[in-house]
Parts: sequence; structure tokens; C-alpha cells
Amino acid sequence: MTTYNAPIRDMQFVLNEVLDISKYSNLPGFTDVSQDLIDAILEEGSKLTTNVLHPLNHSGDKEGCVRHNDGSVTTPKGFREAYDAFREGGWQGLSFDTQYGGQGLPYILSLAMNEMVSASNMAFGMYPGLAMGAAQTILAHGSDAQKETYLPKMVSGEWGGTMNLTEPHCGTDLGLLRTKATPQSDGTYKINGTKIFISAGEHDLTDNIIHLVLARIDGAPEGVKGISLFIVPKLHVKDDGSSGDVNGVTCGSIEEKMGIHANSTCVMNYDNATGYLLGQEHKGLKAMFVMMNEARLGVALQGLSMSQISYENGADYALERLQGRALTGPKEPEKPADPLIVHPDIRRMLMDQRAFNEGARHWMYSAGLYADLHHKSPDENEQQSSDDYLGLMTPILKAYLTEKGYWHASNAQQVLGGHGYIQEWGMEQFVRDARIAMIYEGANGIQALDLVGRKLMQDGGRAWQAYFKNIDDFIADNGDVDALKPFLEGLGDTKAKLLEATQWMGANAMQNFDNAGAGSMDYLHLFALTALSFSWAQMAKVAIEKQAGDDSGFYANKIITGQYFLDRMLPDSSAHLAKIKSGSASMMALEAEAF
Amino acid sequence: MTTYNAPIRDMQFVLNEVLDISKYSNLPGFTDVSQDLIDAILEEGSKLTTNVLHPLNHSGDKEGCVRHNDGSVTTPKGFREAYDAFREGGWQGLSFDTQYGGQGLPYILSLAMNEMVSASNMAFGMYPGLAMGAAQTILAHGSDAQKETYLPKMVSGEWGGTMNLTEPHCGTDLGLLRTKATPQSDGTYKINGTKIFISAGEHDLTDNIIHLVLARIDGAPEGVKGISLFIVPKLHVKDDGSSGDVNGVTCGSIEEKMGIHANSTCVMNYDNATGYLLGQEHKGLKAMFVMMNEARLGVALQGLSMSQISYENGADYALERLQGRALTGPKEPEKPADPLIVHPDIRRMLMDQRAFNEGARHWMYSAGLYADLHHKSPDENEQQSSDDYLGLMTPILKAYLTEKGYWHASNAQQVLGGHGYIQEWGMEQFVRDARIAMIYEGANGIQALDLVGRKLMQDGGRAWQAYFKNIDDFIADNGDVDALKPFLEGLGDTKAKLLEATQWMGANAMQNFDNAGAGSMDYLHLFALTALSFSWAQMAKVAIEKQAGDDSGFYANKIITGQYFLDRMLPDSSAHLAKIKSGSASMMALEAEAF
Repeated sequence: MTTYNAPIRDMQFVLNEVLDISKYSNLPGFTDVSQDLIDAILEEGSKLTTNVLHPLNHSGDKEGCVRHNDGSVTTPKGFREAYDAFREGGWQGLSFDTQYGGQGLPYILSLAMNEMVSASNMAFGMYPGLAMGAAQTILAHGSDAQKETYLPKMVSGEWGGTMNLTEPHCGTDLGLLRTKATPQSDGTYKINGTKIFISAGEHDLTDNIIHLVLARIDGAPEGVKGISLFIVPKLHVKDDGSSGDVNGVTCGSIEEKMGIHANSTCVMNYDNATGYLLGQEHKGLKAMFVMMNEARLGVALQGLSMSQISYENGADYALERLQGRALTGPKEPEKPADPLIVHPDIRRMLMDQRAFNEGARHWMYSAGLYADLHHKSPDENEQQSSDDYLGLMTPILKAYLTEKGYWHASNAQQVLGGHGYIQEWGMEQFVRDARIAMIYEGANGIQALDLVGRKLMQDGGRAWQAYFKNIDDFIADNGDVDALKPFLEGLGDTKAKLLEATQWMGANAMQNFDNAGAGSMDYLHLFALTALSFSWAQMAKVAIEKQAGDDSGFYANKIITGQYFLDRMLPDSSAHLAKIKSGSASMMALEAEAF
Repeated sequence: MTTYNAPIRDMQFVLNEVLDISKYSNLPGFTDVSQDLIDAILEEGSKLTTNVLHPLNHSGDKEGCVRHNDGSVTTPKGFREAYDAFREGGWQGLSFDTQYGGQGLPYILSLAMNEMVSASNMAFGMYPGLAMGAAQTILAHGSDAQKETYLPKMVSGEWGGTMNLTEPHCGTDLGLLRTKATPQSDGTYKINGTKIFISAGEHDLTDNIIHLVLARIDGAPEGVKGISLFIVPKLHVKDDGSSGDVNGVTCGSIEEKMGIHANSTCVMNYDNATGYLLGQEHKGLKAMFVMMNEARLGVALQGLSMSQISYENGADYALERLQGRALTGPKEPEKPADPLIVHPDIRRMLMDQRAFNEGARHWMYSAGLYADLHHKSPDENEQQSSDDYLGLMTPILKAYLTEKGYWHASNAQQVLGGHGYIQEWGMEQFVRDARIAMIYEGANGIQALDLVGRKLMQDGGRAWQAYFKNIDDFIADNGDVDALKPFLEGLGDTKAKLLEATQWMGANAMQNFDNAGAGSMDYLHLFALTALSFSWAQMAKVAIEKQAGDDSGFYANKIITGQYFLDRMLPDSSAHLAKIKSGSASMMALEAEAF
């Protein structure tokens, strides 16, 4: 059976020592964020996730969700109680606006908590995660009355929430969607249509579920310009704010999936359901993107989370399982064999994970800090540059962290050999669960296209240019620290390759857009390696400074792990560049029917 | 639901046009191998696998195997009838010695058939596959009486067979195994112990199952030098050759696994079971390696097979599913959207698979031809060099093809977006099934260690030196064909990197064996890319020669796919070399307790 130990020390390192978030105490929400408060949140979060959520992870997978004939859905045993504990702990509103009952703390602290929730029980985490995304969307686009009606109960966790985009014939291409919204004389709409793949679409954790639904108002323009967003509560909300009669929305079935069995993935049938326009007519996609971007960061975090927990359990096995002898001679000659951890190829798999986990944690939390700065900085330039950073990095984080999360979960499974393939050991569940993150909230190929097709070119390339300048400045400012030189060289070299790729894209994409598409995924990976290099350089700087007086080995290990990143992960950058520069010719040359 | 269309045209190309196996008609078994015979075998094999085996693939996964209280195991619905059809078709003995009822045809034709079996229904294919491995081991090491007793019924498919190596506390490190063999006065042994992860250990497809069991004779030396191999039939064999009473071996339980649910993975309990020594005392591991090497090639083939069938189904979806528009403008403007195949990143995933499938098929079948030459060539030098090739390539094929098979099945799943994650679409089963191939028959890390730790150094490096010389000769002999130059350059460049890596290993592994271990997996991948380059160069040569008069597009497409291999797969070679040369320092530096 698997265990979870939240990497609190590493989280503290990122939050307190590298990002040093106490220096933002001038910002709303950051005022009271002392190191003590951070420690308290991490420790309480760790207790809940380790003791309450993780013990339900495997049983939840085995049991799955059950849909009953009346359309109701029961979550696995223990989920309701666990959700109550989560709700009562006030976790749902941790960083939500205090006006609606949230605690108003920085988003970056929610990220840390969400990492723990996803790692301990990814399927569970989706219930509150989707509700929070829906609440953020209502906060951003709702009327005051809508906010008053829905937000307090969503922020407290009494009500859930979902996002309804996909239909049977359209996933990525939302311009094709057919769900209809017919205006009523009272200003409401009747919603009719079928949505599929609706995570947490129906369940027994909350009294009510607030669905956000994309639909087309009668007579609306075709394509994405005719899509509007609606609030469709599962139960009508009475004047006193409580839940009333059922609305015309039901769960028609739940999907049998590869993983995340404990989360209900529903076909939702809208049959003359009453909906309320959220935001402006025909601007629904833009409004939904508030939720999408939030959700994409949440999915990126799932990738990191799956890599983290699978690493922990792979490492535990490697320390305990005795098998074979070290190549350099027995390490524990008094035992019948050495532990697996003596074998280089076992370490390769675990160190790949470790170097990724620690680098991605800093990168991910940095994005969280930029999200806070975007919303809370008093400086408009900083608001703008933070938003630029987020827009640029969101697709990269989503695609890269989920791909690596999946691949690393599979590596950790490999450490266990045959036992990794057996359900009761729990490693194969991490792989199955991690797999969905590459698909949902925009398949990873879409993220790559978003990066090269939109984010690079927006505002004349302001976002990537500013990011590149940050890197150049960091290298220039820190060149006098000898121990940091390998990190600066690795960063400079990778960034130079990324610049070359960016220029190649600029020169070759305009004449043939397929050149951009053909190189998009490699470009995304090259960008990710640059971002990880930057994270590692920043972490190494702090670790080098603090190493001298440290007996724990934490900083020394940090530097070793960073060196491993340089040695074993960064070399992929040259391959990505070469692939990008090969263009689209051989990729696109076959006639469709030749496939 | 998934479909399977055996890639017969591509198999014909490899067998008839590139390897040109008709030119070996001087060898036993090859005499009657005309193109017509090959075509007939491929077509009959295709019918059986497409019409009988594949329709049971998904239902077999859903239903799984069931163990009853008496220890018997029922395979999924339809498996018995399918097995009867397989057996009655004479497929089991296709390339087995005619003396024992086989057809005596070349092993390479069995490979082609086994590719189809594994692709159409991997879990099914393991039943006859393991029986054949056991039969080969009895053929190689059994007494005449043992061969007479077991082989005819195993070759006809009446009896099954297994290999019993793993015990709860030892998988890779067989020196630790504890199963005991106690000599009896009649020359037999009493076998006592527990074996785990025994594929096809118990089932209802055959009357009897012939287990090959590693055990330690009382008083035997410790470690691998005290292990012997035993034949332990499930049912005693009567003097008339038929199955009699039950022996002391039972299936204690079957494992709940990530995939291959239709194959029973058994815990086998040996309780005073009667066993018969196979081969010499204490030489059991060596004898078992006959089976292991055969099985490793079979597992490599599973990797190719999973990539092939997932490619087919991913491509089918990409041709049908309408979603989005081509970046270069609508391709099918009269439809609401273009098919997925217009999108470069969708093509990237499918072309990765295609370039791998076609290259790996040639490489794999080449290994099959060398196996035939090893056994059947009248020329001792050729026997030796063929054996060298096989020894060198077996670990590379096993690890590389299974890793790519898994990763590609996941890519094909990605093509389907959300539907790829849903069980009824069948793509996620390919991923779950493919996953085991990286683990069993020696986890891939062990293959990499076998390569750098044994195969490279054997006989002073004779095997790799001969292989490198073959490449050099091919390049020298074909330099005058302009259209082939990119392939020769790619091959030469990759081989140069592999040579550099080999020399680095030679120079750095002796002073610190961890340097070899640390680079072993990247070295294996670099070797695989070299082998694929060589395969692609040989295939391109034939395609270039034949392209002119061809209206089908087959050869033109072959060249395009080869160019894609050069553009998009080969660049990884530089990353592998850089990682190898970074050595073991950062990989091995952390104290074990730091993990």
C-alpha cells in the first residue's frame, strides 16, 4: 500500500527561501503571511491529506462511483466524510475573496495545499477544484446578485461546481457546439443539450452543484462567436438562498475510464433546464477561459503531484527491497543482497523524478506568485508583466508537467518491477490517474499550439522577450559566484537554443503555418527546459549561499539534484532544437489515406 | 471499438524485398519458402488474428480470468474456442522441429505470425508463446525420453507450458531463490516452494501444463550456481503418454493487474510436486536462458505489436474525427471541420509510431533471420556471427521496443482526446497491456545492464565490432546513390556517436563500474537508434530502387517515413551521448537516506 508524506521542507524552501514571499507583505492578503503561518498551513494540510485523503485513494479507485437509476451518484466509501473534513477545515476558501467568506490568503498558498490534495488523492481533489474554478468564473463575470447567490455557499464548500464544455461531436473545437439556450420572458434561458466528460457532474458530496454551461442562444452567430455561458444550478435556489426543487439537468450515465475512478465523469443531459446568463451574450468562451486557465494550472499541478507521490513510493521500495549487489561491490555485505537504491539505473529513474519535482515545484509556485501579483500588485506594470508571464507559462506548465508526471509515475512503477504492475501495490493507479492530465483541460497538443500560435506573438512578443530579459539579467547579476557557474552556463545555453528556435519559428512559420505546428511540442519542451533551468539556477543560488552552516544536508542535496538536472535532463534541449528546425515537410508529406 | 488490420504489405516488403529470404533456400526449412508460401501464411494468419483473436481482446480485458475454489482457472469467454482454432491451424508448431510434429519452417515466419497474434490479442498470445518457450527449452536441454514425452503434445498445442522463476522475495536476483528440490530414490525430485507472477500458470485451454521450475537441490551451493531446472507437469504423464493424476502443484491465487487481464498471472504453490531434472544439476539458470532469450524476443515483439495496433486505431480516428481547421486553411471546407489528420501535432504522434513500427519490424525480423542462420547455417562462421548478433541485440530489442511500444500506445490514445481515456474505445487497454512488457522477462534496466555489462565485452567486443563493420561496409558500398545519402549520413553520424559512447564506456567503466550502469539505458537507446538507422537505410535503398515503376505510392511513402525518422527520431542520439558522458557522479552522490 502506498503512503504520502508531503514534501513540506521543500515547499518551505521554495516559499520562504527562494521566492521569499514575506517580502510581499505590502500586498492584500500577504500582510499576515509570516513564516509561522505558512508552516501552520503546510502542517495542517499535510495532516489532512496524509491521514484523511490518502487512505481513501486506493479504495476509491477500486470502488469507483456508482450512478443509481434516479440519476444520483454515490462517491466511494469515506469520500463524504473526507469532504466534510476538508470543508470544515476552511480549505475551499483559503485564497478566495473575504467578501464571500474566503480567507483571502495568497493564491500561492492554495497551490501548495492543492499539490498535497492532488498528490494524496487526485480524484478527490477534482471535486473542490472544479467548484473553485466555477466560483472564480462567477467572481470574474457574474453580476453582484449572482455573486451573492452562489459564491458564499461555493466558497464554504456547501455547493459544488462544474464546467460543461464538451459535447459528443466536439471537444477541442468548441465552435461546433450545439447546446441551445432559449430566452424566456423572465430573463432566464431554457437550456437543452448533452454535455459529456463532465468531471464531478453529479455526486453526493454537496447539497447543490452549480454547473457552468456553454450554449448557443437561439439565433446566435455560428462558431465560437455565438457561444454564451450560463449558470445552471442542479437545484433551483430559493429566495432565502437555500436549495429548492430540481432543475432540468440530470446525469445520464457515468463513464468507465482508465483511472480517476473515484471522480464521477458524467454525461449531463440538459432538458429545459433553467439557466442564467453569466457575463455577456456571445462572450461565453472568453468568460470560460477564466476557469480554463485556472483549471490548466490545477492540472499542471496534478502532473507534479503524481510525480511526487510516485517518487516517494518508488524510493521507499528501492530502499527496502534487497536485490542484487552494487556494481562497485556489496554495500550491505551482511545482508543477502543490497537494496535496489545502489543500482545506477534505479537511481536514474528516481533522480529524474526528483530533479523534475523540485524544479517544477519552484516553477509552478512562481507562476502562483505571478497570479497573486497580477491580481494584487499596486503597480500596473507589474500587473501586466505578471499576466504576461502567466499567459505564456500556463500552456507550457500544463503540457510539460502532465507529460512528465505521467512518464515519471511510470518510471516509479518500473522501480517496483513486477509488483509495480499489481493493483494492490498502488503504483499502477498513479499511472492510470496521471494519464488523464495530458488530455483534459485542452489536450497537450492544443497547449503547444496555444503557445506557438498565440502566446508567442501576442503584443509583439512582449511576454517572451521580458522573460528572456529576466534570464539575461539573472545571469549577468550572478556571474561572480563560482559554484553557480554550471547552472548559469546551462541556463544560458538552453535559453540561447530557445532563442534560436523562437527566431526560426518567426522566420519559417509565416510562410507555412505547418512549420509552427510541426515544431510546437518540441518548442514547448525546449521552453520548459529553459524554465526549469532558470528555476534550478535560482534554487542553486540560495542553496550555495546557505550550504556552509547546514548540517541537515538539505542544501548540499539540493545542489547535487540540480547538477543531476544539468547532466541528465538538459541535454534533451539540443534534440528539441534539431527537431524544430527540421520543419514540417516529412511530417505533412503523406496523403491522409496513406495512414 | 478497435480493429486490427495486419500490416501484410509491410511484412511482405521486409521479408521478400529487403531481407529477401528466398535466397536462403539452401538452408533446412527454407527450401520451400516461396513468396507464395509466405503470402499464404500471412493471409491465413491475418484472418485468424483479425476475425477470431481480436474480437476477444476487449471482452477478455473486461472479463478477465477467474480462479475457482479448487484452484482451476477459467479464461474469458471465447478464449477456449479461439485457442482450438489456433491449435487446429497448426500455428503452434509453425517453426518447430518436424521430428516432434512441427512444420519446420523458418523462425522468422513465426515472428511475423506472432506479431499478428500479439497485436490482435496480447493476453491470448502469451498462452501459446510461453508453451513454445518451454518446448524450446526441453528441445535444447531435455533427454530423448523427455523430448518424446512432452514435445509432441506441446508442439501440437494440446499441452501448455510455463516458466517459473520469480519468488516473493526475488525477481531479478535469482541467486536468492528458495524453492527446494529433494532427490527421490527413483531419480525424480520433490519440489516445494512458492512461485509468483507465473503467466499462464493455470488455465482451461489445454489438458495439461508443463511447468519449468527453477529450484535448489538439497545441499546445492548458494547463489545462482546452485540452481537447477525441473519439469513439473500439472498432471502426471501416464506411460501411454496421456495425462493422468494431479501432481502437487496448484494455483494459489491470480493477481489483479494493470492489464493483460485475460492472461492468468498465478501464484503457484509446489507442495511435494514430482519434478524431473531438465539438463544438468546446478546448471538450471543456463538452461532457462534458452527460454529467457526466446521470451525476450517475444516480448520485444509485443512492444512492436502494441505500437502497430494502437497506430492503426489512432490513425483511423484521426481520419474520421472532424475537429478544427488545418493551419494552412480548410482542407475540407464543405464539412463543419477538417479531420484531425490535418493537424501537425496529430501527425507527429502518428508518424513517430509509423517510423518506429516500420523500422522496428525490419530490425526485429532481421534478428529472426539471424536466429535461423544461427541454428541452420552450414557455415560455422555464420552460425557464430549470427549468435553474436542475437546476443547483442536481444536486450536492446527487448528494452527499446517495449518502451517505445508503451509510449506509442499512449500517443495513439492521445490522438483520441477524451475518448482515449474511456474504456469502451479500447485505446487505454493497449496502454495498460503494453506496460507489462517493460517489466517482465527482465525489467528494462536489467536489459541495459546486460548490454553494457556483458554483451559489449564478451569475446573482446567481437559482436559490436562486427556489427559496426557491417554498417561501415553498407555505407561504403552504397555511397553512389544520391537519394540514399541522407540515410547514409544519418546512419554514419549515429554510429559515430555510438562508437564514441562505446569508447567512453571502455575508458570510464573500468575505473568505476557505476559509470557503465549510469549510462546503460542511454547507451541502449543510442544503440537502438543506430540499429533503426541501419534498418531504415536498408529499406530506403530498396524503396529508392523500386520507386520509379510504382503507382501504389508504397515506396514513395516508405521514403517519406524514413525521412521523418531522420528528421524527428534520430536527433535524440546527441542527447543520449551527452547523458552517457556525464558519468555517474550526480546520479550516485546522494546518500540513500536522502531519497
